[in-house]
Formats: sequence, structure tokens, C-alpha cells
Amino acid sequence: MNRAQLFEQIKKKKSYLCVGLDTDLEKIPKHLLKSDDPVFEFNKQIIDATKEYCVAYKPNTAFYEALGAKGWESLKKTLNYIPKECFTIADAKRGDIGNTSSLYARAFFQQMNFDAITVAPYMGEDSVKPFLEFKDKWVILLVHTSNKGAEDFQLLETRDGKFLFEEVINTSRQWATPDQMMYVVGATQAAKMGEIRRLAPDHFFLVPGVGAQGGDLGAVSKAGMNEQCGLLVNSSRVIIYASTKEDFAEAARKEAKMVQQEMNVLLERLNRF
Amino acid sequence: MNRAQLFEQIKKKKSYLCVGLDTDLEKIPKHLLKSDDPVFEFNKQIIDATKEYCVAYKPNTAFYEALGAKGWESLKKTLNYIPKECFTIADAKRGDIGNTSSLYARAFFQQMNFDAITVAPYMGEDSVKPFLEFKDKWVILLVHTSNKGAEDFQLLETRDGKFLFEEVINTSRQWATPDQMMYVVGATQAAKMGEIRRLAPDHFFLVPGVGAQGGDLGAVSKAGMNEQCGLLVNSSRVIIYASTKEDFAEAARKEAKMVQQEMNVLLERLNRF
Repeated sequence: MNRAQLFEQIKKKKSYLCVGLDTDLEKIPKHLLKSDDPVFEFNKQIIDATKEYCVAYKPNTAFYEALGAKGWESLKKTLNYIPKECFTIADAKRGDIGNTSSLYARAFFQQMNFDAITVAPYMGEDSVKPFLEFKDKWVILLVHTSNKGAEDFQLLETRDGKFLFEEVINTSRQWATPDQMMYVVGATQAAKMGEIRRLAPDHFFLVPGVGAQGGDLGAVSKAGMNEQCGLLVNSSRVIIYASTKEDFAEAARKEAKMVQQEMNVLLERLNRF
Repeated sequence: MNRAQLFEQIKKKKSYLCVGLDTDLEKIPKHLLKSDDPVFEFNKQIIDATKEYCVAYKPNTAFYEALGAKGWESLKKTLNYIPKECFTIADAKRGDIGNTSSLYARAFFQQMNFDAITVAPYMGEDSVKPFLEFKDKWVILLVHTSNKGAEDFQLLETRDGKFLFEEVINTSRQWATPDQMMYVVGATQAAKMGEIRRLAPDHFFLVPGVGAQGGDLGAVSKAGMNEQCGLLVNSSRVIIYASTKEDFAEAARKEAKMVQQEMNVLLERLNRF
């Protein structure tokens, strides 16, 4: 999916919600455990319930890998089930030397047909470039994450008086245009979001940390929205585990709808396009 | 496997060779493609041929993920086939927020019984700690990699006049002892190897980049060896693709044996223990 198509979906659905499919066998409703593929069954019902209110889905690959080959099958089935108009993100945080990153790209863009993959920047340009060789496929580079450990290295100051995460933005902007690269920018510090928007005015940001991790949707949107919205705000646990009983899909639908309504208001109020 | 056991194996085999199982369907001998599981069949024969000469095996997970669920099965079978006295490394370069890293740890240390996993440091302490909660399991943290892109961020200078990779060592040394943490230190610059050894005198280093990527075994060993050897030098392509014909296993055996003999000489000559 290209940038124009993504923006179209945002305008059409009045939403920039990404639903995180962090599907954990220990957390899904017990009655699903009887089915052949409980993870896929859960995801299927979550997707049916939320697809009207979100523009993207983001399975975190760790949850599937923890189940071995069977989890990998559940992931593939889930991806095939997601409607074509939704943007799909493999939250895999990969990154390796060139020939290895090429294989990861093959795994996520060809074996499975994801639109985007999250990538860690530590190994530099040649670890990222192989993901950019696919038309209309995206790299979502880790810049400033939402966890406490973000302080350890991302906020180190370089000799030029910049934070490491700023160097990551400035350097990686030379590798790809905003048509192929997004940045992961955590929601837990809205002030940082504004700074990062100034450094990368045109890029989409994938924003984790709203909800369970404590980020505020209004503050984040105000600080981060640009002329094409430029935000995909992820919510995982708050939506998919809104209920752990048989009504889980209906509860997820209500949560997603509430977020979409808040986003609709924010899109109108911030009125950037 | 703990540090004392690993050191015992090094002394017994007079080798600090790690064989990288970067098994690619496009590169393995054609006659294997007829078997049910060509990747496992290839690995099995490579392991049989080289186990006498190496102390560790390192499958790079990208090669298995590129094959989907079937690749995941091949990886699991491979791991079960590796003799218990060999140290096993999942070269996965993972790292995510705490609850997600916990799942990766479960995938690689419980679902599969790897001794160690490579981890990217960008997300900081809470992304690494969950891997350290397993007894006698190891984190191998990326510090200074062997690819060109290593220059982009790893060699950035911080305000304290240190390279980023030095900050990664200094900070991560507070997270775990040398009994649970190793560092990835590329072989392509032996001078850097010496600097890094001074910063981390007791840690094992996993050293990629000897062979296909151009690193020199003698120079690396001289710069990096410590009182417990402290090195696992990886070789992948040079060994496993020594021949692409039916004699591939025998050719791999010869290559591995040559490296082991060179290591034997280096262990004697450098005489650190």
C-alpha cells in the first residue's frame, strides 16, 4: 500500500488507529482454546469486530514465534484474513547484515504479504536497505521507543549536541523518502513527539504506548499530526483484551469505536488537511 | 551451558570455532532438494562432518523464517540434532519492550532449547533483561558489528568522547555478569577488537566476519583472546558452502578441520591459559 492509499483510508474511516494483534494464548477467552487454531480464531473475530474503526493491524511476531511453527501458521492465516484496505505491519524489529536482512524482507514481504516491517537501526544503512527494495513496502525504523530503556541509548547525547535518536532520523532520511519509511515514536512523552515532528515533517509515525503504557491520544495527536495525518496510533491490550469472556469481540468493537470517535474529533479539531 | 563448561569444551577440542548454519535452499547441493526436509538434511550432514572441530553452532533465524512454518520446523529439528556438548546460538538479533522480549526468550530458550540468543541494544535495559531470567542462558549483545553500516551509529561519538558501542558495553556490563552476557564484536577491524577487549576483559566475544567478510583469524585472536579464550569465532559460508556438490559435507569437514588446526596453533602460541 502506498502513502496516498493510506491517507485515503484515514480520511475515509476518520481514523488513524492501528490495532496491535499481540495475541497471547494465556490471555484469550478460555472457550476459544477448544478450536483448532485458537490464535487465528481470536484474531479473526477481533478483525471482524474492529476493521470498520481502524486503518492498520500490527501483529507482534514474538507472540507467534513463542508458539513455534504453529504460531507461524496462525500469523500467515491472520495476515491473509485482514481486509486488503487495511495497512499491515509486522512488528518484528529485525535488522542484520545485508544478505540476512534480504532474507527477512523475503519472509515478511513475499512469504507473507505485509505492507511494512519494524526495523532496529543499530546496524546501520546496509541492514535497512534490503527492506527498501520492494515497491510500496515500508520500513518502520525504531527512533524513540515507549519503554523505560529508551533512555539508555536513544537519549545519549552525541558530540554534536544531538540525541542518538535525532542522529538516527537525520541519517536514515538519506536512505529513503517518506513514501517508504516511517518512524516508531513512543507516545509516552508528547514533548519529544513535537521535537521529532520538526525533524521529520513529512514522515508517518507509528505510535505505540497509548493506553496500557500510559500515553495520551490528544496530546500525541496535537504534537504529531501533519498534513497527511502522519500518525498511526497503535493500541493493543486495551482493545483486544477489553473483555476476556465470550463477549470479547463485542467489547473490542466498542473500545475501537470509542478510539475512532476520539480520533474523528481530533482530525476535525486539528484540521491539518 | 555455563561458562566453565564452554571453556572445558574449548580446551578439549582445541577450538573456538562456531559454525554458522545460514542454510539457504538456493545454495545447498541440488541433490538434497529431493528429500522431505532439505534444510534439515543439509544441516544434519554438516553437523556430523564438523562437530569434532567446533564448539558452537549458530543458526541465523532469517534463513529459517524465509521458509515460513516449515523453516521453523527445520530449525527445531536442527537444534535437537546438535550434540549436547556444543553451545547453541540463535542469531536472531531480537529486542523489544519487556513483555515482548519475555516471549522471545520463551520462544528461543523454552520452545527451543538454545543456549544463547543475539540481541540488539537500541531499546535498552528492559528489552534485554527478560532474556537474563533463565539459568545458564546467555544474551549476546550487538556491540560492534562486522558490516559497513556499523559506522553509521555504532561509531558515533558521544558527548563524553566515547563511541556509542563503548557506551553499550559500559552500560550493559551493569545488567549481567560475564557468566550470562557475551558481545558481538566483528572481526573486520582487529584494532577495535583490542580496544573492546580492554573495556570488557572477561566477556566472551562472538566474532563474525572471519572468512567471507574478510576478517583475519590470527589478528583477531591476538587482539581478543583472554584467560578463558573468550572468543567464539564464527564461520558460515566458507565452511558450509565449501562445495556445492555431493561432497559438500566432506568439504565442510576439511574446512572446519583447517580452521581448528589454525586455532590449535593460536591457542598454543598465545598461551593465555
